[in-house]
Amino acid sequence: MVAFPKVILASGSPRRKQLLQQADIEFDVIVPNTAELVPPHTPLHQVPAIIALEKATAVNAQVQNNEVIILAADTVVLLKNQLIGKPASTQEAVAILQQLQGSTHTVVTGVAILYKGKTHQFSESTEVTMCPLTDAQIDYYVQTYQPFDKAGAYAIQEWIGAVAIEKINGCYYNVMGLPIQKVYEYFQQIILAETT
Amino acid sequence: MVAFPKVILASGSPRRKQLLQQADIEFDVIVPNTAELVPPHTPLHQVPAIIALEKATAVNAQVQNNEVIILAADTVVLLKNQLIGKPASTQEAVAILQQLQGSTHTVVTGVAILYKGKTHQFSESTEVTMCPLTDAQIDYYVQTYQPFDKAGAYAIQEWIGAVAIEKINGCYYNVMGLPIQKVYEYFQQIILAETT
Repeated sequence: MVAFPKVILASGSPRRKQLLQQADIEFDVIVPNTAELVPPHTPLHQVPAIIALEKATAVNAQVQNNEVIILAADTVVLLKNQLIGKPASTQEAVAILQQLQGSTHTVVTGVAILYKGKTHQFSESTEVTMCPLTDAQIDYYVQTYQPFDKAGAYAIQEWIGAVAIEKINGCYYNVMGLPIQKVYEYFQQIILAETT
Repeated sequence: MVAFPKVILASGSPRRKQLLQQADIEFDVIVPNTAELVPPHTPLHQVPAIIALEKATAVNAQVQNNEVIILAADTVVLLKNQLIGKPASTQEAVAILQQLQGSTHTVVTGVAILYKGKTHQFSESTEVTMCPLTDAQIDYYVQTYQPFDKAGAYAIQEWIGAVAIEKINGCYYNVMGLPIQKVYEYFQQIILAETT
Protein backbone atom coordinates (compact mmCIF):
# COMPACT_ATOMS: atom_id res chain seq x y z
CA MET A 1 0.00 0.00 0.00
CA VAL A 2 1.16 3.53 -0.84
CA ALA A 3 2.43 5.55 2.17
CA PHE A 4 1.20 9.15 2.15
CA PRO A 5 3.36 12.16 3.07
CA LYS A 6 2.03 14.65 5.60
CA VAL A 7 -1.39 16.02 4.59
CA ILE A 8 -2.68 19.48 5.51
CA LEU A 9 -6.44 19.89 5.33
CA ALA A 10 -7.21 23.50 4.39
CA SER A 11 -10.68 23.40 5.97
CA GLY A 12 -12.26 23.71 9.40
CA SER A 13 -15.17 21.41 8.50
CA PRO A 14 -15.64 18.65 11.09
CA ARG A 15 -17.22 16.46 8.37
CA ARG A 16 -14.11 16.66 6.15
CA LYS A 17 -11.92 15.77 9.14
CA GLN A 18 -14.15 12.78 9.89
CA LEU A 19 -13.87 11.51 6.28
CA LEU A 20 -10.05 11.73 6.23
CA GLN A 21 -10.05 9.84 9.54
CA GLN A 22 -12.36 7.18 8.08
CA ALA A 23 -9.79 6.71 5.27
CA ASP A 24 -7.00 6.30 7.89
CA ILE A 25 -5.20 9.39 6.51
CA GLU A 26 -3.17 11.40 9.03
CA PHE A 27 -3.44 15.17 8.70
CA ASP A 28 -3.11 18.58 10.30
CA VAL A 29 -5.67 21.34 9.88
CA ILE A 30 -5.01 24.92 8.81
CA VAL A 31 -8.17 26.95 8.24
CA PRO A 32 -7.65 29.34 5.31
CA ASN A 33 -8.75 32.93 5.38
CA THR A 34 -10.01 33.66 1.86
CA ALA A 35 -12.56 36.00 0.32
CA GLU A 36 -14.12 33.13 -1.73
CA LEU A 37 -14.37 35.32 -4.84
CA VAL A 38 -14.84 33.96 -8.36
CA PRO A 39 -14.55 35.82 -11.68
CA PRO A 40 -17.90 37.05 -13.01
CA HIS A 41 -19.66 34.73 -15.51
CA THR A 42 -17.88 31.63 -14.16
CA PRO A 43 -20.01 28.56 -15.05
CA LEU A 44 -21.76 27.54 -11.84
CA HIS A 45 -20.39 23.99 -11.68
CA GLN A 46 -16.82 25.35 -11.83
CA VAL A 47 -17.29 27.66 -8.83
CA PRO A 48 -16.41 25.18 -6.04
CA ALA A 49 -13.15 24.01 -7.68
CA ILE A 50 -12.04 27.65 -8.09
CA ILE A 51 -12.82 28.44 -4.44
CA ALA A 52 -11.07 25.23 -3.35
CA LEU A 53 -7.93 26.33 -5.21
CA GLU A 54 -8.07 29.73 -3.50
CA LYS A 55 -8.20 28.00 -0.12
CA ALA A 56 -5.33 25.62 -0.96
CA THR A 57 -3.21 28.49 -2.34
CA ALA A 58 -3.77 30.60 0.79
CA VAL A 59 -2.64 27.76 3.07
CA ASN A 60 0.30 26.96 0.76
CA ALA A 61 1.58 30.54 1.06
CA GLN A 62 1.55 30.09 4.82
CA VAL A 63 3.14 26.63 4.95
CA GLN A 64 5.78 27.01 2.20
CA ASN A 65 6.70 23.33 2.16
CA ASN A 66 6.47 21.42 -1.14
CA GLU A 67 6.87 18.06 0.64
CA VAL A 68 3.39 18.17 2.20
CA ILE A 69 0.07 17.59 0.43
CA ILE A 70 -2.35 20.47 0.78
CA LEU A 71 -6.01 19.52 0.35
CA ALA A 72 -8.91 21.98 0.07
CA ALA A 73 -12.57 21.56 -0.89
CA ASP A 74 -15.70 23.62 -1.38
CA THR A 75 -19.27 22.29 -1.62
CA VAL A 76 -22.35 23.89 -3.23
CA VAL A 77 -25.87 22.81 -4.08
CA LEU A 78 -27.24 23.33 -7.59
CA LEU A 79 -30.99 23.35 -8.23
CA LYS A 80 -32.44 24.21 -11.64
CA ASN A 81 -29.21 26.00 -12.63
CA GLN A 82 -29.24 28.09 -9.45
CA LEU A 83 -26.37 28.02 -6.98
CA ILE A 84 -27.50 27.55 -3.39
CA GLY A 85 -25.01 28.35 -0.67
CA LYS A 86 -25.29 28.58 3.13
CA PRO A 87 -28.45 30.18 4.58
CA ALA A 88 -27.99 33.52 6.37
CA SER A 89 -31.11 33.20 8.54
CA THR A 90 -33.85 30.84 9.72
CA GLN A 91 -36.15 32.24 7.02
CA GLU A 92 -33.56 31.58 4.31
CA ALA A 93 -32.95 28.03 5.56
CA VAL A 94 -36.70 27.32 5.48
CA ALA A 95 -37.04 28.84 1.98
CA ILE A 96 -34.13 26.72 0.66
CA LEU A 97 -35.58 23.49 2.07
CA GLN A 98 -39.02 24.34 0.64
CA GLN A 99 -37.31 24.52 -2.76
CA LEU A 100 -35.30 21.29 -2.31
CA GLN A 101 -38.11 19.04 -0.92
CA GLY A 102 -39.92 16.86 -3.44
CA SER A 103 -37.23 17.18 -6.11
CA THR A 104 -33.70 16.23 -7.16
CA HIS A 105 -30.74 18.58 -6.73
CA THR A 106 -27.03 18.23 -7.44
CA VAL A 107 -24.30 18.55 -4.83
CA VAL A 108 -20.97 19.62 -6.33
CA THR A 109 -17.73 19.51 -4.36
CA GLY A 110 -14.66 21.10 -5.91
CA VAL A 111 -11.29 19.81 -4.73
CA ALA A 112 -7.79 21.28 -5.02
CA ILE A 113 -4.62 19.36 -4.16
CA LEU A 114 -1.15 20.95 -4.10
CA TYR A 115 1.99 18.77 -3.93
CA LYS A 116 5.60 19.33 -5.02
CA GLY A 117 4.72 22.55 -6.84
CA LYS A 118 1.96 20.96 -8.90
CA THR A 119 -1.76 21.75 -8.79
CA HIS A 120 -4.50 19.14 -9.17
CA GLN A 121 -8.12 20.23 -9.37
CA PHE A 122 -11.37 18.33 -9.94
CA SER A 123 -15.09 18.38 -9.21
CA GLU A 124 -17.43 15.60 -8.18
CA SER A 125 -21.23 15.72 -8.58
CA THR A 126 -23.86 13.67 -6.75
CA GLU A 127 -27.59 13.75 -7.46
CA VAL A 128 -29.77 13.80 -4.35
CA THR A 129 -33.53 13.12 -4.39
CA MET A 130 -35.50 14.52 -1.46
CA CYS A 131 -39.03 13.30 -0.72
CA PRO A 132 -41.83 15.82 -0.06
CA LEU A 133 -41.62 17.50 3.37
CA THR A 134 -44.35 19.38 5.23
CA ASP A 135 -43.71 22.90 6.55
CA ALA A 136 -43.91 21.45 10.08
CA GLN A 137 -41.10 19.00 9.26
CA ILE A 138 -38.94 21.75 7.73
CA ASP A 139 -39.51 23.99 10.78
CA TYR A 140 -38.64 21.10 13.11
CA TYR A 141 -35.38 20.48 11.27
CA VAL A 142 -34.26 24.11 11.06
CA GLN A 143 -35.14 24.84 14.72
CA THR A 144 -33.53 21.65 16.05
CA TYR A 145 -30.43 21.37 13.85
CA GLN A 146 -29.67 25.03 12.96
CA PRO A 147 -28.14 24.20 9.55
CA PHE A 148 -26.59 27.64 8.95
CA ASP A 149 -23.09 26.41 8.13
CA LYS A 150 -24.37 23.92 5.53
CA ALA A 151 -24.62 24.50 1.77
CA GLY A 152 -28.25 23.85 0.85
CA ALA A 153 -29.32 24.26 4.51
CA TYR A 154 -29.05 20.56 5.37
CA ALA A 155 -26.62 17.83 6.37
CA ILE A 156 -27.27 14.34 5.01
CA GLN A 157 -25.91 12.72 8.18
CA GLU A 158 -28.60 14.41 10.34
CA TRP A 159 -32.36 13.77 10.89
CA ILE A 160 -33.33 15.14 7.49
CA GLY A 161 -30.89 12.77 5.77
CA ALA A 162 -32.54 9.79 7.47
CA VAL A 163 -36.19 10.69 6.91
CA ALA A 164 -36.12 12.69 3.66
CA ILE A 165 -33.33 11.51 1.33
CA GLU A 166 -35.01 8.97 -0.94
CA LYS A 167 -31.92 8.13 -2.98
CA ILE A 168 -28.62 9.43 -4.24
CA ASN A 169 -26.76 8.76 -7.46
CA GLY A 170 -23.01 9.15 -7.00
CA CYS A 171 -20.71 9.44 -3.97
CA TYR A 172 -22.47 9.78 -0.58
CA TYR A 173 -19.41 11.31 1.09
CA ASN A 174 -19.36 13.99 -1.60
CA VAL A 175 -22.70 15.18 -0.19
CA MET A 176 -21.03 15.40 3.24
CA GLY A 177 -18.38 17.69 1.74
CA LEU A 178 -15.50 15.55 0.46
CA PRO A 179 -15.45 12.89 -2.32
CA ILE A 180 -13.04 10.85 -0.24
CA GLN A 181 -12.70 7.90 -2.64
CA LYS A 182 -11.58 10.22 -5.48
CA VAL A 183 -9.28 12.13 -3.10
CA TYR A 184 -7.64 8.85 -2.01
CA GLU A 185 -7.23 7.81 -5.67
CA TYR A 186 -5.63 11.18 -6.53
CA PHE A 187 -3.28 10.94 -3.56
CA GLN A 188 -2.13 7.48 -4.68
CA GLN A 189 -1.60 8.56 -8.29
CA ILE A 190 0.18 11.81 -7.41
CA ILE A 191 2.57 10.08 -5.02
CA LEU A 192 3.28 7.19 -7.40
CA ALA A 193 3.97 9.69 -10.22
CA GLU A 194 6.55 11.46 -8.04
CA THR A 195 8.30 8.29 -6.86
CA THR A 196 8.58 6.41 -10.17
CA MET B 1 -45.83 15.88 12.61
CA VAL B 2 -47.05 12.32 13.22
CA ALA B 3 -46.31 10.96 16.71
CA PHE B 4 -45.12 7.35 16.66
CA PRO B 5 -46.20 4.68 19.17
CA LYS B 6 -43.54 2.63 20.91
CA VAL B 7 -41.21 0.91 18.44
CA ILE B 8 -39.44 -2.39 19.09
CA LEU B 9 -36.40 -3.05 16.93
CA ALA B 10 -36.09 -6.80 16.39
CA SER B 11 -32.35 -6.62 15.68
CA GLY B 12 -29.12 -6.39 17.63
CA SER B 13 -27.34 -4.47 14.86
CA PRO B 14 -25.64 -1.30 16.20
CA ARG B 15 -26.00 0.26 12.73
CA ARG B 16 -29.78 -0.17 12.70
CA LYS B 17 -29.97 1.39 16.17
CA GLN B 18 -27.87 4.32 14.98
CA LEU B 19 -30.20 4.93 12.00
CA LEU B 20 -33.36 4.92 14.14
CA GLN B 21 -31.64 7.39 16.47
CA GLN B 22 -30.70 9.60 13.51
CA ALA B 23 -34.41 9.69 12.58
CA ASP B 24 -35.27 10.73 16.20
CA ILE B 25 -37.35 7.54 16.66
CA GLU B 26 -37.50 6.14 20.20
CA PHE B 27 -37.27 2.38 20.46
CA ASP B 28 -36.45 -0.66 22.56
CA VAL B 29 -34.41 -3.60 21.30
CA ILE B 30 -35.35 -7.27 21.44
CA VAL B 31 -32.94 -9.55 19.59
CA PRO B 32 -34.88 -12.39 17.94
CA ASN B 33 -33.76 -15.97 18.04
CA THR B 34 -34.63 -17.39 14.62
CA ALA B 35 -33.26 -20.11 12.39
CA GLU B 36 -33.27 -17.77 9.33
CA LEU B 37 -34.68 -20.49 7.08
CA VAL B 38 -36.34 -19.84 3.73
CA PRO B 39 -38.33 -22.25 1.55
CA PRO B 40 -36.24 -23.88 -1.18
CA HIS B 41 -36.33 -22.17 -4.61
CA THR B 42 -37.22 -18.77 -3.10
CA PRO B 43 -36.14 -16.06 -5.57
CA LEU B 44 -32.93 -14.54 -4.12
CA HIS B 45 -34.18 -10.96 -3.87
CA GLN B 46 -37.14 -12.13 -1.75
CA VAL B 47 -34.93 -13.88 0.82
CA PRO B 48 -34.24 -10.88 3.11
CA ALA B 49 -37.92 -9.84 3.41
CA ILE B 50 -38.86 -13.43 4.35
CA ILE B 51 -36.13 -13.59 7.01
CA ALA B 52 -37.16 -10.12 8.29
CA LEU B 53 -40.72 -11.37 8.75
CA GLU B 54 -39.45 -14.42 10.66
CA LYS B 55 -37.55 -12.10 13.01
CA ALA B 56 -40.54 -9.77 13.50
CA THR B 57 -42.89 -12.70 14.10
CA ALA B 58 -40.56 -14.24 16.70
CA VAL B 59 -40.37 -10.95 18.65
CA ASN B 60 -44.15 -10.43 18.30
CA ALA B 61 -44.82 -13.82 19.90
CA GLN B 62 -42.71 -12.69 22.84
CA VAL B 63 -44.16 -9.18 23.21
CA GLN B 64 -47.86 -9.93 22.55
CA ASN B 65 -48.84 -6.25 22.36
CA ASN B 66 -50.61 -5.00 19.22
CA GLU B 67 -50.12 -1.35 20.24
CA VAL B 68 -46.36 -1.37 19.58
CA ILE B 69 -44.66 -1.31 16.19
CA ILE B 70 -42.31 -4.23 15.64
CA LEU B 71 -39.58 -3.57 13.08
CA ALA B 72 -37.20 -6.20 11.66
CA ALA B 73 -34.74 -6.17 8.76
CA ASP B 74 -32.31 -8.45 6.99
CA THR B 75 -29.57 -7.39 4.56
CA VAL B 76 -27.83 -9.43 1.83
CA VAL B 77 -25.46 -8.72 -1.03
CA LEU B 78 -26.26 -9.96 -4.53
CA LEU B 79 -23.52 -10.31 -7.15
CA LYS B 80 -24.19 -11.83 -10.56
CA ASN B 81 -27.30 -13.60 -9.23
CA GLN B 82 -25.38 -15.07 -6.30
CA LEU B 83 -26.39 -14.41 -2.70
CA ILE B 84 -23.45 -13.35 -0.52
CA GLY B 85 -23.93 -13.49 3.23
CA LYS B 86 -21.58 -13.06 6.17
CA PRO B 87 -18.07 -14.54 5.86
CA ALA B 88 -17.26 -17.45 8.19
CA SER B 89 -13.48 -16.92 8.14
CA THR B 90 -10.67 -14.55 7.12
CA GLN B 91 -10.21 -16.55 3.92
CA GLU B 92 -13.90 -16.26 3.05
CA ALA B 93 -13.92 -12.49 3.74
CA VAL B 94 -10.89 -12.04 1.45
CA ALA B 95 -12.48 -14.18 -1.28
CA ILE B 96 -15.76 -12.17 -1.10
CA LEU B 97 -13.95 -8.82 -1.37
CA GLN B 98 -11.85 -10.11 -4.28
CA GLN B 99 -15.16 -10.81 -6.05
CA LEU B 100 -16.75 -7.44 -5.16
CA GLN B 101 -13.79 -5.16 -6.00
CA GLY B 102 -13.83 -3.55 -9.44
CA SER B 103 -17.53 -4.20 -10.05
CA THR B 104 -21.09 -3.28 -9.10
CA HIS B 105 -23.15 -5.34 -6.68
CA THR B 106 -26.64 -4.92 -5.21
CA VAL B 107 -27.42 -4.60 -1.52
CA VAL B 108 -30.96 -5.74 -0.68
CA THR B 109 -32.54 -5.08 2.69
CA GLY B 110 -35.85 -6.75 3.45
CA VAL B 111 -38.05 -5.07 6.08
CA ALA B 112 -41.02 -6.39 8.06
CA ILE B 113 -43.26 -4.14 10.18
CA LEU B 114 -46.01 -5.52 12.46
CA TYR B 115 -48.62 -3.16 13.96
CA LYS B 116 -52.19 -3.71 15.19
CA GLY B 117 -52.31 -7.23 13.82
CA LYS B 118 -51.26 -6.21 10.32
CA THR B 119 -48.10 -7.19 8.47
CA HIS B 120 -46.19 -4.84 6.15
CA GLN B 121 -43.25 -6.16 4.16
CA PHE B 122 -40.99 -4.58 1.54
CA SER B 123 -37.49 -4.71 0.05
CA GLU B 124 -35.14 -1.92 -0.93
CA SER B 125 -32.22 -2.33 -3.36
CA THR B 126 -29.13 -0.14 -3.73
CA GLU B 127 -26.44 -0.56 -6.38
CA VAL B 128 -22.90 -0.16 -5.07
CA THR B 129 -19.85 0.28 -7.33
CA MET B 130 -16.51 -0.66 -5.80
CA CYS B 131 -13.25 0.48 -7.41
CA PRO B 132 -10.42 -2.04 -7.98
CA LEU B 133 -8.57 -3.04 -4.80
CA THR B 134 -5.17 -4.72 -4.46
CA ASP B 135 -4.76 -7.89 -2.40
CA ALA B 136 -2.71 -5.84 0.09
CA GLN B 137 -5.63 -3.42 0.55
CA ILE B 138 -8.11 -6.28 1.02
CA ASP B 139 -5.80 -7.95 3.57
CA TYR B 140 -5.37 -4.64 5.41
CA TYR B 141 -9.15 -4.17 5.63
CA VAL B 142 -9.98 -7.72 6.75
CA GLN B 143 -7.15 -7.81 9.34
CA THR B 144 -7.93 -4.35 10.73
CA TYR B 145 -11.74 -4.29 10.63
CA GLN B 146 -12.64 -8.02 11.02
CA PRO B 147 -15.87 -7.73 8.96
CA PHE B 148 -17.27 -11.14 9.98
CA ASP B 149 -20.71 -9.88 11.06
CA LYS B 150 -21.25 -7.98 7.78
CA ALA B 151 -23.13 -9.24 4.70
CA GLY B 152 -20.67 -8.97 1.79
CA ALA B 153 -17.72 -8.77 4.24
CA TYR B 154 -17.66 -4.97 4.42
CA ALA B 155 -19.27 -1.97 6.09
CA ILE B 156 -19.69 1.16 3.98
CA GLN B 157 -19.13 3.41 7.01
CA GLU B 158 -15.59 2.00 7.56
CA TRP B 159 -12.22 2.52 5.79
CA ILE B 160 -13.25 0.48 2.76
CA GLY B 161 -16.36 2.65 2.28
CA ALA B 162 -14.22 5.78 2.20
CA VAL B 163 -11.46 4.59 -0.13
CA ALA B 164 -13.22 2.04 -2.34
CA ILE B 165 -16.91 2.93 -2.89
CA GLU B 166 -16.94 4.92 -6.12
CA LYS B 167 -20.66 5.54 -6.20
CA ILE B 168 -24.02 4.22 -5.14
CA ASN B 169 -27.41 4.39 -6.80
CA GLY B 170 -30.21 4.30 -4.27
CA CYS B 171 -30.40 4.71 -0.50
CA TYR B 172 -27.03 4.90 1.33
CA TYR B 173 -28.55 3.88 4.67
CA ASN B 174 -29.95 0.75 3.02
CA VAL B 175 -26.33 -0.35 2.50
CA MET B 176 -25.77 0.17 6.25
CA GLY B 177 -28.67 -2.21 6.93
CA LEU B 178 -31.90 -0.18 7.11
CA PRO B 179 -33.65 1.92 4.41
CA ILE B 180 -34.59 4.44 7.09
CA GLN B 181 -36.39 6.91 4.80
CA LYS B 182 -38.77 4.19 3.55
CA VAL B 183 -39.22 2.86 7.11
CA TYR B 184 -40.15 6.38 8.31
CA GLU B 185 -42.61 6.77 5.40
CA TYR B 186 -44.22 3.39 6.19
CA PHE B 187 -44.51 4.31 9.89
CA GLN B 188 -46.28 7.56 8.99
CA GLN B 189 -48.69 5.86 6.57
CA ILE B 190 -49.47 2.93 8.86
CA ILE B 191 -50.20 5.21 11.82
CA LEU B 192 -52.29 7.65 9.75
CA ALA B 193 -54.29 4.72 8.35
CA GLU B 194 -55.11 3.55 11.89
CA THR B 195 -56.08 6.97 13.23
CA THR B 196 -58.25 8.25 10.38
